[in-house]
Amino acid sequence: MAKRLLDHVGIVTADISTAVRFWRDGLEMGVKMEERNDEEAVDIVFIDAGGDRTIELIAPTTEDSGIAKYLNKKGQGQHHVCIEVDDIEAVMARLTAQGFELINEAPRRRHDGTLYAFTHPKSTGGVMVELYQKPE
Amino acid sequence: MAKRLLDHVGIVTADISTAVRFWRDGLEMGVKMEERNDEEAVDIVFIDAGGDRTIELIAPTTEDSGIAKYLNKKGQGQHHVCIEVDDIEAVMARLTAQGFELINEAPRRRHDGTLYAFTHPKSTGGVMVELYQKPE
Repeated sequence: MAKRLLDHVGIVTADISTAVRFWRDGLEMGVKMEERNDEEAVDIVFIDAGGDRTIELIAPTTEDSGIAKYLNKKGQGQHHVCIEVDDIEAVMARLTAQGFELINEAPRRRHDGTLYAFTHPKSTGGVMVELYQKPE
Repeated sequence: MAKRLLDHVGIVTADISTAVRFWRDGLEMGVKMEERNDEEAVDIVFIDAGGDRTIELIAPTTEDSGIAKYLNKKGQGQHHVCIEVDDIEAVMARLTAQGFELINEAPRRRHDGTLYAFTHPKSTGGVMVELYQKPE
């Protein structure tokens, strides 16, 4: 059976220190990794949500980044849900064939080799879904 | 170590049939359960996101329910993230002691015996978190 696995949830916050205090100190969940991504102009903190499950906290580092605009328009809260698949190109082709809109026409590649692509929330009943295909 | 596990993500949609079509037919993920909850005035569809991981699709069935008001105010999208814990009262006491605001003062109980409570998104850096303690 094809893999379909809730991998992580991305949450946009205007206040990364409060968010980290809540998840790390309040809920006593570990920090897996922190990074500043200058290309996307975001700070990201990955919270360990059990085994391979992750909460991704995202905060803009500039006033005019994509995430800053999202925050101004939509407010704080959940940004995307990521589903791990083992056949990202097949899933993307199937979604397109069924009339669902993708943000990326082809998968993009992270530095660790993970392929990823986003679906447009307009066509999915309201949520942005990220697809992940991790390297074997 | 205390259990802290991403259990499910709740997504509010105005159009449950599009949402189900996306998750079930587009992404080929199974439907675990569908229910109409008249007390909360919602239709809920649980999508299998791998083992014990779940996507919870939520749609209002009336114009004046809590979820209908949420939808009018915030729009479609993610509504809450649920973390399973094994000590919900201790987690709630800790959060309160640290100044985080809870929506429920005491845990509530679902028909299957699961205890649950929500934190207020204002005090957590932007997201509503549900805590779950499943029966042993």
